Amino acid sequence: MSNTVVVYHSGYGHTQRMAEAIAEGAGGALYAIDSDGNLSDDGWAALDAADAIIFGSPTYMGGPSWQFKKFADTSSKAWFTNKWQDKVFGGFTNSASLNGDKLNTLEYFVLLAGQHGGLWVSLGIKPANVKASKRDHANRMGSYIAPMAQSDADAAPSEMSAGDLETALLYGARVAGVAQRFASTQVA
Amino acid sequence: MSNTVVVYHSGYGHTQRMAEAIAEGAGGALYAIDSDGNLSDDGWAALDAADAIIFGSPTYMGGPSWQFKKFADTSSKAWFTNKWQDKVFGGFTNSASLNGDKLNTLEYFVLLAGQHGGLWVSLGIKPANVKASKRDHANRMGSYIAPMAQSDADAAPSEMSAGDLETALLYGARVAGVAQRFASTQVA
Amino acid sequence: MSNTVVVYHSGYGHTQRMAEAIAEGAGGALYAIDSDGNLSDDGWAALDAADAIIFGSPTYMGGPSWQFKKFADTSSKAWFTNKWQDKVFGGFTNSASLNGDKLNTLEYFVLLAGQHGGLWVSLGIKPANVKASKRDHANRMGSYIAPMAQSDADAAPSEMSAGDLETALLYGARVAGVAQRFASTQVA
Amino acid sequence: MSNTVVVYHSGYGHTQRMAEAIAEGAGGALYAIDSDGNLSDDGWAALDAADAIIFGSPTYMGGPSWQFKKFADTSSKAWFTNKWQDKVFGGFTNSASLNGDKLNTLEYFVLLAGQHGGLWVSLGIKPANVKASKRDHANRMGSYIAPMAQSDADAAPSEMSAGDLETALLYGARVAGVAQRFASTQVA
Repeated sequence: MSNTVVVYHSGYGHTQRMAEAIAEGAGGALYAIDSDGNLSDDGWAALDAADAIIFGSPTYMGGPSWQFKKFADTSSKAWFTNKWQDKVFGGFTNSASLNGDKLNTLEYFVLLAGQHGGLWVSLGIKPANVKASKRDHANRMGSYIAPMAQSDADAAPSEMSAGDLETALLYGARVAGVAQRFASTQVA
Repeated sequence: MSNTVVVYHSGYGHTQRMAEAIAEGAGGALYAIDSDGNLSDDGWAALDAADAIIFGSPTYMGGPSWQFKKFADTSSKAWFTNKWQDKVFGGFTNSASLNGDKLNTLEYFVLLAGQHGGLWVSLGIKPANVKASKRDHANRMGSYIAPMAQSDADAAPSEMSAGDLETALLYGARVAGVAQRFASTQVA
Repeated sequence: MSNTVVVYHSGYGHTQRMAEAIAEGAGGALYAIDSDGNLSDDGWAALDAADAIIFGSPTYMGGPSWQFKKFADTSSKAWFTNKWQDKVFGGFTNSASLNGDKLNTLEYFVLLAGQHGGLWVSLGIKPANVKASKRDHANRMGSYIAPMAQSDADAAPSEMSAGDLETALLYGARVAGVAQRFASTQVA
Repeated sequence: MSNTVVVYHSGYGHTQRMAEAIAEGAGGALYAIDSDGNLSDDGWAALDAADAIIFGSPTYMGGPSWQFKKFADTSSKAWFTNKWQDKVFGGFTNSASLNGDKLNTLEYFVLLAGQHGGLWVSLGIKPANVKASKRDHANRMGSYIAPMAQSDADAAPSEMSAGDLETALLYGARVAGVAQRFASTQVA
């Protein structure tokens, strides 16, 4: 089995629900970045030991939350010593608008994975974009490099789209599968 | 009155319908890039004389169509002589998926405007992103830097979202208004 | 005269020196975001009253610093009430590498300005990119949407490129000039 | 051995020289997109059969050349049938300016790989960004998600930076190595 870790910040619970679906799909561990942008020592240790790291954040004001960015800036310690080099990476985001600059958050996760010298796993699910497409279809958001969820500004986490959560579950499994194939070829 | 020109490529007619709504809002002229990526001499002359230029293209394979990009590459002639410096710029795009990397197409338009030394006009309409939001509301796509439209892969141009077209109309008027204010302060 | 405000975070002083050059060019005020990501009440009031806002941050781990992002997230209060709608915006960044994902930081500033319904001012200076180009030439970085500076990881702020600082000065003047033309057409 | 294919467009020979270095590092095949944006049938067949695909284009007017984009749009045929799903992808670009929006071209390659459901391989070489750094050092450009080269506007391909070419060579070997590890775990 590969060792996949989901590290995320959630403001109101929607991104957390998405994180849980991804961790379930990946059979992996979940570590939350707190409201001050801090991650526990256990969390950092888990990331250092992981085969795959999946980043999660809401999209606020066109990008990842500042709490996630504080985590990213703190990861410069791992960067200096190449601790995360060649790991497998993925990411996900949620926001209230259908678009809402969510792509920018996902592209930032790709850049962060690139800073660490990693491999990025795309979503790999065709978009549901015909007249018959429904809110509970996988990849109804039509994203490509990683999964997106959309939750109305006045909707509780319990009201999230079943399609968005299914997409998250499938992506978690996909990233873990890539990491598994990759880990099996590590030089002993 | 300001002189606004909409220059666009459309593959199947959806982007053209959006272009028409924008031109109507702007009280401006429309020039189409053809299926070989060429623009008429009249089109180039109109762009050189414009106060504001609005770029339009479908999003294909994650970015503007190659026909639009051929137009952009050909605009290097205007670039060399700073012909479009300080003009007002805007843009728009349509694709089949809700997201579908449309943000990347709009960001490319910002970069192209930047290459030409221009000013960029954002959409300026708050997103419709609550439970009561409907397909015919302005900015139901939740875009910010410029308008997006989404048309199902099996939907004709006649079936486009009324909200997306209203958004386009409002944006055309907004860009022309900015250009008008700006043009009125030109040194004689 | 237009009222231009430069709001920035600087970690080690390089971005601050760039901010000072921009404020000098703009004849504008400077407000620093502190090491906890906070801005003074005077700073927020100055931004609300400004004709033009210029964002500045180092590029850390592929994007703006978390302190800048905390400021951006806090600006959601102004977003809710459209306080910054139709203002003129610009931005700038510094990092140790020639590229170092600096473009992503500038693109984020464009997205943030877009979230607020603003107008973006590009750099408007042709790149110095021939064999005879030198480190003290304006826009030696070859940036377009806004100015970039590059400072070696082991170089003090006092060792910054004269070309980068000249670029910043010219950009400050450009943004203030655009804001001035724009402000002169405000409806009384 | 993995089967790596480099597919690129070059306008004036600089991107071609970079492509040759990458193919040498990868031990892979090279296919050029012609000046009309077309690729030979042999080229398309090689891409379909490849373990890894590496995209190359100059950065023109802030993005990949229209010839590369025509190739990308034509790859929608492979997209419809998921032919390139789960392949390993990489990319590279050259332009005259130090920055020159090259990051946008590389980010487009990531999006295109994402559209095809692929895995992206980052550069994995720390930037040379201290006072002692020289033009012939690997990753002197300070790029992360993939290699960049910079060639002065008045410099021939023979005058390209030795550091940029070394970077390209190392990246080719890296992508091929990832593809090799990945291919070795294919279900028989």
